[in-house]
Amino acid sequence: MGYIYCVGIGPGATSHLTKEAIDALIASSVIVGYKTYVDLISPIIGERQVIATGMMKEVERAKIAVELAQDGKVVAVVSSGDSGIYGMAGLVIEVINELGIELGQDKIGLRVIPGIPAFVAAASLLGAPLVHDFCAISLSDLLTPWKVIEKRLRSAGEGDFVVALYNPRSKKRDWQLQSALAILGEYRDEKTPVGLVKRAMRQGETVEICHLSNVPIEEVDMESILIVGNSNTFEVGPFMVTPRGYFDKYEIL
Amino acid sequence: MGYIYCVGIGPGATSHLTKEAIDALIASSVIVGYKTYVDLISPIIGERQVIATGMMKEVERAKIAVELAQDGKVVAVVSSGDSGIYGMAGLVIEVINELGIELGQDKIGLRVIPGIPAFVAAASLLGAPLVHDFCAISLSDLLTPWKVIEKRLRSAGEGDFVVALYNPRSKKRDWQLQSALAILGEYRDEKTPVGLVKRAMRQGETVEICHLSNVPIEEVDMESILIVGNSNTFEVGPFMVTPRGYFDKYEIL
Repeated sequence: MGYIYCVGIGPGATSHLTKEAIDALIASSVIVGYKTYVDLISPIIGERQVIATGMMKEVERAKIAVELAQDGKVVAVVSSGDSGIYGMAGLVIEVINELGIELGQDKIGLRVIPGIPAFVAAASLLGAPLVHDFCAISLSDLLTPWKVIEKRLRSAGEGDFVVALYNPRSKKRDWQLQSALAILGEYRDEKTPVGLVKRAMRQGETVEICHLSNVPIEEVDMESILIVGNSNTFEVGPFMVTPRGYFDKYEIL
Repeated sequence: MGYIYCVGIGPGATSHLTKEAIDALIASSVIVGYKTYVDLISPIIGERQVIATGMMKEVERAKIAVELAQDGKVVAVVSSGDSGIYGMAGLVIEVINELGIELGQDKIGLRVIPGIPAFVAAASLLGAPLVHDFCAISLSDLLTPWKVIEKRLRSAGEGDFVVALYNPRSKKRDWQLQSALAILGEYRDEKTPVGLVKRAMRQGETVEICHLSNVPIEEVDMESILIVGNSNTFEVGPFMVTPRGYFDKYEIL
């Protein structure tokens, strides 16, 4: 029986994979993934067969993986971060569904191996912005209409969620971030801390805390994650922290 | 100079820690944490000094860690999952702030080492429910007023976010989950898939997919995470998946 591991490799360097992820890569005879991510884990995959395709070729990669598994191969489909958070796991399962393959019963088994998500890596570098309720919103309107994204931003504002913004800005999508921050600014003070992390835990990593009113939009790219604090988030030295409420409730110190 | 590592150990077994987390534990001379979590990583911490306190003693643990670091010790404060998601990292930074210690400058350094969050582990066992925008909401009203939680549930409903519910139900908090599901049911079909994962990646793990109208409330405990799909989430064999929209946009197969 063929098998597909959807493997999240975490934010970058091999020191952020779990043992389970490493074991899944070692157990696989073929590695399928976007070239940049496959290169990050080359010390682990060694001489295994690699099928690396370019950016935007996600559907092609998912189909290749399913076909290989149908031929009885054990395949690892690699995503950076976590495979289930804006990653490949969903697409692989969708392709299996569209082809009418019965998972488990039929010729293919599948397991999703979790990885450290990009926004969790970014948050750790910023201190502890996610200690209270949060949401993640992708600003890419390639597959999601902007009106859906805008509604989610408004809901996140209404609910006072900490907000992690994925895919904030690319060369072709240059107005969405400014618009998103303006929407959140209708609900939050302009001094709300915003963390901007680029290339978290990869070469060229940068970490910066600014405010909702002065985010350096031009610096933001597709390798960036922004984390916008909620109404209680504050700065402590080089960090931002969202309190969970212990200090409201208890006389602590 | 003393140093604090806030270490997320992931969902359970040692095979879900990253190398960076293992290295931080090995570099520490004292391990501070809730006893159950410390026991999970005992093969790694070996003969190191352990200060294990009970549940609900988070503030005490944070203070002990800061005091040890002020004495020049290297301390690992252990959380299950990720230290920054309903974990100890925020509280440690808050204690440092309340004590007026200047991080980096003063006698203490601090780094948050990310771990696989509990909801990400749960999601991976359910397939790929988090592939589109999602939020996390804790149903514990010990530190957060229920009206704030209710507002967030309504915002999550309005915004059609996939919702991960933390701390869904305990012996003392027995009505919140039912109320939360009823609120989400005002926005979503009763057939919306809901994943219920107990003890993800620990001994006694269970994984179940039900619907918004038939969640087995009595089975839910504090070691459970629920993931409520959005309006597009559907079931594929043993899994639930939230589509990102590739199949709406492209003629794929």
